[in-house]
Formats: sequence, C-alpha cells, structure tokens
Amino acid sequence: MTKMSDYAAWSPSDVRQMIREGRWDRPTSGMCAGHVQGNLVILPKDLAYDFLVFAQRNPKPCPILDVTEPGDPEPKLIAPGANITTDLPRYRVWKNGECIDEPTDVIKYWRDGLVGFLLGCSFSFEGALIQSNIAMRHIDLDRNVPMYITNIHCRPAGRLSGPMVVSMRPISAARVSKAVLRTGCYPAVHGAPVHIGEPDAIGIKDISRPDFGDAVPINPGEIPVFWACGVTPQAAIMAAKPDFAITHAPGCMFVADPLDIDYAVF
Amino acid sequence: MTKMSDYAAWSPSDVRQMIREGRWDRPTSGMCAGHVQGNLVILPKDLAYDFLVFAQRNPKPCPILDVTEPGDPEPKLIAPGANITTDLPRYRVWKNGECIDEPTDVIKYWRDGLVGFLLGCSFSFEGALIQSNIAMRHIDLDRNVPMYITNIHCRPAGRLSGPMVVSMRPISAARVSKAVLRTGCYPAVHGAPVHIGEPDAIGIKDISRPDFGDAVPINPGEIPVFWACGVTPQAAIMAAKPDFAITHAPGCMFVADPLDIDYAVF
Repeated sequence: MTKMSDYAAWSPSDVRQMIREGRWDRPTSGMCAGHVQGNLVILPKDLAYDFLVFAQRNPKPCPILDVTEPGDPEPKLIAPGANITTDLPRYRVWKNGECIDEPTDVIKYWRDGLVGFLLGCSFSFEGALIQSNIAMRHIDLDRNVPMYITNIHCRPAGRLSGPMVVSMRPISAARVSKAVLRTGCYPAVHGAPVHIGEPDAIGIKDISRPDFGDAVPINPGEIPVFWACGVTPQAAIMAAKPDFAITHAPGCMFVADPLDIDYAVF
Repeated sequence: MTKMSDYAAWSPSDVRQMIREGRWDRPTSGMCAGHVQGNLVILPKDLAYDFLVFAQRNPKPCPILDVTEPGDPEPKLIAPGANITTDLPRYRVWKNGECIDEPTDVIKYWRDGLVGFLLGCSFSFEGALIQSNIAMRHIDLDRNVPMYITNIHCRPAGRLSGPMVVSMRPISAARVSKAVLRTGCYPAVHGAPVHIGEPDAIGIKDISRPDFGDAVPINPGEIPVFWACGVTPQAAIMAAKPDFAITHAPGCMFVADPLDIDYAVF
C-alpha cells in the first residue's frame, strides 16, 4: 500500500483527481508538500453568518481560506475547477448533531443554498517544519496527527461555541524555538503554537489517548507542541446540532492549489 | 487648538470619553500611540453576510477586528463598555449610496438588527514606524493621511465589489525596507505595503490630489509607499447602494483598547 509521503511531490490537481476517482480515502498529511491543505465545513446559508463571525472571533483555530457561493461547490479562490463534494478523501455528514454517514463523496447530499468553507490546516506548514529539519512523527509513522479537545474556550458567536481543539507534534527541546518561528509566519494556517509542553494545563489528561487522530510516541528530550486545529469549528458546529452539515473526516483534507509560501507573512 | 499628537499618551478610554462628550470631531491619527484604531462600518443584518465574505476575500484592505451582535452597539472584543454610536469623532450616514448626514454621533440612527464592523486601520502601525525612526509626514503636518482610489480590483462577494483604496506615506528611500518589515508584522491592520513607488501603475494620476484625506508633500529622495486602506470596504458598500449604512468619516477612527503589539505576528 502506498503511503501519504509517496505523494509529496504530486500536484494538488493530480491528487484531487486520484481522490475524485475513489483511489484514496485516507488522511492527506504529507501529500503535495508545500501546498496549502484545507479543513472543510459545509453549512446551510442560515448558519453561515454565525460561522463567519465565529471564525473572525477565533482566527487561530478557524482561519478561512475560501468561502464558496451558495449552491456552488467550486472553491474559486484556492482551487478553480475543483469540487468540494468529490475532492476530499472522506466526509462526515451530520444531521441534528449526529454523524449519519462517512462517505467518500457527498454528491447525493449537495443541494441549493449550501455554503462551503475551507479553513487553513496545520498540515500546510509541516513542509516548512520538515525543511527546517524538524521531523513530523505522525508522517514518519504514516499516521493521522493526534488531536485533543482542550479546556480553552473559544469566543462564542450566535449559536456557535465550544472548546478549542489542538493538534500535537512532539519536537526536540532544541528545535521548539525554530518550530515557533517557522509556523508563526503562517497565521492563515493556524500560525504559531498555542501551547508548548504541560498538556495538563490545557485539560489534556492522557496524551497517549487523543480525541481524534492517532497517538504518536513522545521520545525522551521531546516536548509536546500544540497548534490550534481546524477540527475546532467542527466541534462547535456539532455542539450547535444544526439540521444539516457536512465536514471532512479528521485528517482527510482538501488539497488546494496555493503554496504555503503564498500565505507567509515573511 | 490642540493637535492629534498632543493625545499620543492618552488612554483609549479617555480619548473615547472626550469624543463622546463632543470635545473632539477631527481625525485620530497619532492619538493613543501604540493602540489599535479601527474603521467603522454599520450595516443591516441582511448585508452583513456579504460584507464578511468580502472581508475574507480581501483581507489586506478589510482586516476585521470586531463584529458586534445585531442591535448591540458595544464592541465587546476590542473595547468592552465602549459604544460605536458615540465614540467616533465623526460619522457618515448613507441612504441608497448617498451621504445624507455627517454627524458627531449616530444615536438617532441606531436601530435593531444593525451590525457594526470594526476593521484594522493603518494608523495602528504608525507608532511602530515612528519608533523605527520613520517620520509620518501627515502627523507632523497635523493633517489627515492622503488616500487614493486605485485600479486594483477587489475580489467581489455577493452585492459587494470595487477598487482597492490605499493610504500613502512618503518615506526616504533608505527607510522603505524597514517600513515594509515593521508593518509586515501586523497583518491584522493592513500589514505590509501593497505598492511601493510608481503611483501611475496603480491608476493614481496625480499624487498631489488624493481622493480622500489631505495631500502631503513628497520630498526629494522620498518614495511614495502605499498601504491597503480601510476606506476600501466603504467604497464597495457605497457602490452597492444599500438602503442604509453608517461609516466613520475618513480619518475619524474608533480608538480601541488592544495594543498594536497584541496583533503583531512577531
């Protein structure tokens, strides 16, 4: 079986094509290295306003890269010609806050008035970290990144509220500083870490049992480093129990055309 | 008569109090040095969604700092206790795209369902520039900053579209690089310049005749440097001719509590 990192040099459109044809239904971390990846949230128009305000108030976990026109599945800003109903490996379909399906496309669920949001994902800056000689444990192990629900409260907006979800990467103590600086350049894809070390302090009881994704070992001399995660808005939406929503399955992202460097402040 | 720079050391709440009492009705550049200042846009809820999407698609001219709850004039994120209907020196009230009033408060125009947006303003990073020994000509001359309508098209969203408006500061050639780096740290308040030199190339025919604000001289050895300006969304809204809207008068900003440094990427 091929690994995510086998597709590091593929173009985003080729990877999207492979996914559209049903030939890849797993996480996308490490694919199309250097290109931005996006979390997906699809909502009825009546909840879309609350979601935009929620994202504005919580920019670290919810950096919006693209908003589709109501009823149109093409993300024109970050991937002209692509289709958010077919181009992600796996989706979650939600009714009244419950996941009712985890399909590999959502063509049959698409309808007029739905708005798609693509949000920056920390996978996008992993290329920069690897370039800086900071290994990504979950990529090396071909696993999904571990994600945790924290006790950090997001600022509420309308019907949306909830805790911040973070992703974790173990980093050797000597490289943590470099990791902060490299990711701090990318505020559009979660930016600098929100927390470094001390999982207890943000309500993580057992680092070996993530709430989403897969556990990874933390070796001696390594610090767990936490970045705001795009699963945060999913958690808030699910808590609001809207009639209907679609999201990506954790780790199964939309691979977009822009380069990470297009979003770099420096 | 006192000058804007006389209030450099005042606190935001004291300046807002002075404004609320009708004792200051002019531009705010240079007041409360180091604190973020915001452009104001007030819209009926039905246009607020288009505006949020427009801001997401055009983050350089439209960085949103706060969105008020419909009908509530308190900007809870950036100035708890303040009131957007009284705390700006001068407003513009618009009906069907025409300015019908330029009052010093908008209490009588406020009504249920209105949403206030506060957007980052380049005044906020002027303190950082002055700290870096880069003089602000318009502050030294106690004038409003010059602003120009360009031929750079914003990405449209719903009913909103239009050209980017820029502010201009003349900077000595040797200091331009420093000015880029200092302001690049502040993407939430327009960030790095969008254009350096060559006004013609962005459709500015006569640099001595700004579309908004006051002209300032450009001395020999100086380059005109252009930053995205918060008047941009005003121009787009006015072009859309909504039934009703309120904005700040150019240069007459909302002085908020956070420090510029709170928004710095580094």
